[in-house]
Amino acid sequence: MLQVGINGFGTIGKRVADAVRAQPDMEVVGVAKTRPNYEAEVAVRKGYPLYAAVPDRIERFEDEGVELAGTVDELVAASDVVVDACPSGIGAENESLYEGYDTPALFQGGEDADVADVSFTARANYDEAVGADAVRVVSCNTTGLCRLLTPLSEEYGVEKARVTLVRRGGDPSQSSRGPINDILPDPVTVPSHHGPDIQTVMDVDIDTVGLKVPATLMHVHSVNVSLGADPDAAEVRDLLEGEDRIFVVPESFDIDGAGKLKDFALDAGRPRGDLWENCVWGESITVDDGDLYLFQAIHQESDVVPENVDALRAVADQADYEESTATTDDALGMGL
Amino acid sequence: MLQVGINGFGTIGKRVADAVRAQPDMEVVGVAKTRPNYEAEVAVRKGYPLYAAVPDRIERFEDEGVELAGTVDELVAASDVVVDACPSGIGAENESLYEGYDTPALFQGGEDADVADVSFTARANYDEAVGADAVRVVSCNTTGLCRLLTPLSEEYGVEKARVTLVRRGGDPSQSSRGPINDILPDPVTVPSHHGPDIQTVMDVDIDTVGLKVPATLMHVHSVNVSLGADPDAAEVRDLLEGEDRIFVVPESFDIDGAGKLKDFALDAGRPRGDLWENCVWGESITVDDGDLYLFQAIHQESDVVPENVDALRAVADQADYEESTATTDDALGMGL
Amino acid sequence: MLQVGINGFGTIGKRVADAVRAQPDMEVVGVAKTRPNYEAEVAVRKGYPLYAAVPDRIERFEDEGVELAGTVDELVAASDVVVDACPSGIGAENESLYEGYDTPALFQGGEDADVADVSFTARANYDEAVGADAVRVVSCNTTGLCRLLTPLSEEYGVEKARVTLVRRGGDPSQSSRGPINDILPDPVTVPSHHGPDIQTVMDVDIDTVGLKVPATLMHVHSVNVSLGADPDAAEVRDLLEGEDRIFVVPESFDIDGAGKLKDFALDAGRPRGDLWENCVWGESITVDDGDLYLFQAIHQESDVVPENVDALRAVADQADYEESTATTDDALGMGL
Amino acid sequence: MLQVGINGFGTIGKRVADAVRAQPDMEVVGVAKTRPNYEAEVAVRKGYPLYAAVPDRIERFEDEGVELAGTVDELVAASDVVVDACPSGIGAENESLYEGYDTPALFQGGEDADVADVSFTARANYDEAVGADAVRVVSCNTTGLCRLLTPLSEEYGVEKARVTLVRRGGDPSQSSRGPINDILPDPVTVPSHHGPDIQTVMDVDIDTVGLKVPATLMHVHSVNVSLGADPDAAEVRDLLEGEDRIFVVPESFDIDGAGKLKDFALDAGRPRGDLWENCVWGESITVDDGDLYLFQAIHQESDVVPENVDALRAVADQADYEESTATTDDALGMGL
Repeated sequence: MLQVGINGFGTIGKRVADAVRAQPDMEVVGVAKTRPNYEAEVAVRKGYPLYAAVPDRIERFEDEGVELAGTVDELVAASDVVVDACPSGIGAENESLYEGYDTPALFQGGEDADVADVSFTARANYDEAVGADAVRVVSCNTTGLCRLLTPLSEEYGVEKARVTLVRRGGDPSQSSRGPINDILPDPVTVPSHHGPDIQTVMDVDIDTVGLKVPATLMHVHSVNVSLGADPDAAEVRDLLEGEDRIFVVPESFDIDGAGKLKDFALDAGRPRGDLWENCVWGESITVDDGDLYLFQAIHQESDVVPENVDALRAVADQADYEESTATTDDALGMGL
Repeated sequence: MLQVGINGFGTIGKRVADAVRAQPDMEVVGVAKTRPNYEAEVAVRKGYPLYAAVPDRIERFEDEGVELAGTVDELVAASDVVVDACPSGIGAENESLYEGYDTPALFQGGEDADVADVSFTARANYDEAVGADAVRVVSCNTTGLCRLLTPLSEEYGVEKARVTLVRRGGDPSQSSRGPINDILPDPVTVPSHHGPDIQTVMDVDIDTVGLKVPATLMHVHSVNVSLGADPDAAEVRDLLEGEDRIFVVPESFDIDGAGKLKDFALDAGRPRGDLWENCVWGESITVDDGDLYLFQAIHQESDVVPENVDALRAVADQADYEESTATTDDALGMGL
Repeated sequence: MLQVGINGFGTIGKRVADAVRAQPDMEVVGVAKTRPNYEAEVAVRKGYPLYAAVPDRIERFEDEGVELAGTVDELVAASDVVVDACPSGIGAENESLYEGYDTPALFQGGEDADVADVSFTARANYDEAVGADAVRVVSCNTTGLCRLLTPLSEEYGVEKARVTLVRRGGDPSQSSRGPINDILPDPVTVPSHHGPDIQTVMDVDIDTVGLKVPATLMHVHSVNVSLGADPDAAEVRDLLEGEDRIFVVPESFDIDGAGKLKDFALDAGRPRGDLWENCVWGESITVDDGDLYLFQAIHQESDVVPENVDALRAVADQADYEESTATTDDALGMGL
Repeated sequence: MLQVGINGFGTIGKRVADAVRAQPDMEVVGVAKTRPNYEAEVAVRKGYPLYAAVPDRIERFEDEGVELAGTVDELVAASDVVVDACPSGIGAENESLYEGYDTPALFQGGEDADVADVSFTARANYDEAVGADAVRVVSCNTTGLCRLLTPLSEEYGVEKARVTLVRRGGDPSQSSRGPINDILPDPVTVPSHHGPDIQTVMDVDIDTVGLKVPATLMHVHSVNVSLGADPDAAEVRDLLEGEDRIFVVPESFDIDGAGKLKDFALDAGRPRGDLWENCVWGESITVDDGDLYLFQAIHQESDVVPENVDALRAVADQADYEESTATTDDALGMGL
């Protein structure tokens, strides 16, 4: 059993912990958190040994009566691999900690690409991460685009992709984020950093632009791809429906946006209503003279969760792409 | 086993169905729906026999390949009790249907009080519903206020309650609702109908006013109660913490609003992230010279679910208050 | 002086009335309204003779003590040209009314193109509207795109334009509109109707897709144009800065979205904070190998106002393009 | 002519500058700003001499080609009175600057009460500010409540006021503020600081609680007052309609919230659509047994503007209450 430590027990960390626990070949050594709050309470209730991410703040846990198993150093020492799920930028600061214990580490997409040897999306480049010391699981948006562009690229070739990312302003629990009533070019410079980020994973000609809007549930991508062939829309739809981590939303579901998508995921019993898959509106898939258009929604809180699990197996050289993704998806209950 | 039919499989109906199925002494005969959509798909996947709520629209289900068990008439005939979970106003139209089959029925709070013999909140007036032919489970807001005011009334007496209801504009899946960027007195006339609605359940002097805001997760009540005694805040807090369907949010959880409350409920594994309990911020409970203030959040999608289950037992005269609520809460996993 | 009647005194109608009044060569005969409200009060205060748009509702005005000058028929009879500023779809119903009095009419973009002889944006096709009996001033989004694409087309040629329209859910005063917290593909089918609508005005190869978000201030367009030449970004910026109805937002203004844009317009003394111009973020203008990207914000409440004024002159054959737009812009105070 | 300097040219400062300029007995010496942006551009266009609020940042203005008249010290030296309109907390830091030049100063409500000799609302305590060296014009919410409670107190006596303040999350131009989709008790402790803040101006028994919601236009107060008499609602309405800085919204205007209120203010030609008055919904005024309820909307960007102008005259001992408020209101165009 692969012993996995998770540094950071927020939006991503708590989901990765549950996903790791669900796997047949790995277990959670413990999780590290900076401060006691409802998420610390959840860790305790779930029986995850809780470590103090910041040694100086041990007292704050004690004051709230939260029992600690130790500090993050001890967690790193006890782990075969560490998943760093700290806020953007903190991962890079933790690099030396993991190196000091010779513990391979996964980083999240908020870190710069040079924090790791490989930037990773299972569908695109699993093999590159096999045996690596440090792997960066790219951001939710980059993951979603790599999952979409890889099969398109394999099947038809991608001459040029142009994507407008309409991004949620904050997560449902991030009450201090905005905007309240605006549509913000973000970044205002074009193209955005998302395109180059995708190119850390796969070789594709892509321009991206980003806007931020007052919604919290999911990002939505307006995608245009100039394909190297001219399939009809039904053919592209078949291709995408054949992808394990793409959910093509059927017209008959009458799902018009992220609200109903999440409601469906909750109805379907998904833990936390998570949508690990890209959600592509079937009705939106259109091809005209090799020019493909579609809309996809990306659940920023969870789509990288299966990728983290796969990256763990890759780093530990514990399974190949087919075996790992099949195991991950089966354990999680992928498929809607 | 009490045979329960559920007419309407939307926000409330689907939750009541799952709650009924979870009980040891009742089962779901079937559910009726007006049209095929993702919720119909969910009913099918969960194995709930699906009935057409509108006979004329049977073809629409057939066109989408959704198999039907019959029409709503057959469902009513096959049920010991029917839960009407149709949109506001439709329940009243269904009254004669249920009477025609001599099937006792529960209605929801969107109907006028005269649709039923009793307006019901388990904590306030369970006994009045025992053996009734028609019971109206009051709205989410009324339920939440009855749950709060009953113990206060029993323990201290309530001289006067004044509540400002800051209401969510729509549910997460209701994409056509507003406002987008406003705070609307709604109704602009004072007091609002919520006060009189509470008085259909319990005898209390209460004035309510309502405002609608651009949020979807929960309602929040700003509550002031002039008590008949002058307890200190800790005593009131103890009283509320002793209530099974009130969750007093601890300061240490660092939960500032509905976003984090729902996130906690999802983390805690609650189905659909439902918060069946009133959520009272512990830190907000204040008493000065018999004048109590507090904030509570009410989850409009789910707080009436346990009440529906209890009302079923009351109508069927299948258990008394203590036994029913204990069974309901145990089966659901109440308690946070 | 051209005698202008305005049928509909809501968001567009009231702005067109003020703009017509500001012109040296036209005056407002009167305005028609369906019901008394704050906007009727404003018409009275401004001294616009008020006509009942629906004769049956005259009493409602009388009940509120609002004095009427007559019914809409009398307004049409008294006008040289009528501007129909009624809600979408009502314009078409009014067609026979205007024809009955042989009064030329302007319609708004919410009507189908066949309501009129010409679909109009001054910069694109002023001449086609000269002397026409019925002209349709296209919608805010179509107007904004025609203004942008016309100079690009003239200067470089447009091989292909691809635009994602991130649309506001409702206007600031439309309190019943949604969504509150979602990003809705709208329409979910691709391409959206905006592209064909642009082609009613100008000949250009364009694909558009639409999304609706919870914002009220302005629409934002994510624009990509494959040009027939490869200018550098500075050259394109110069071109756009030379357009009278395009405001290129300077970097130094530190304006990140519609909130600050509107705040600036209000600071600058614009009536109602209206932004008649396309607002193009200067910083966003990028060209790579003939591929142009930029963001522009479109004020849905006002960008068609100067177009309506010009269309009036065209219909009345009272001025040519240069003279009309110069007069309009001078009278309004165009330029930021 | 009273020479007025304004330190801070943001939301409040720019409005106070325009209001001062509109008065017959005062003029703007200059305004100080921390950085060049669209508001600095507006200052230049309006001909307000612009001073650097932070001497170190003079270069940033020069880099943008914005001409400066000097630094804030020079502005203070040249002013008879300074209005400090800096962000909350900065005012207190500026105290010694103003004292150093012996220049009397106005502070805004974001500062603690002890920054000044008097906390001020014209209607409540004009006389206390006459000749003072430092006056604090209280916050928008406190101002709105003092304006409402003063006449009620004078006419009937106020035994107890209870107010739920439903606060906007941020101003229209504050794009980084939230929440996006939540209703936040803020502060979660009860009562909120607003009550004590009102008591710095007037002697009244009041409890306030606050919530923050995702809206930007105005705050809305849900007000309950136990009066010392039992007038009927019409009498209270007459009383409020007689107040110069209260606008009782007529039912016939069909205004349901802040969106339509602002739209009306813009239609009415108000600069920036400002609503200097408390906006009380006439329909909401209800009295039962001496218990008054009503809703009022408060425009956070502008309701303190006339108060600042009056406070200037009070500090300069240039007019009494009646004369000052009449002059202010006449110059601004108060009355809707």
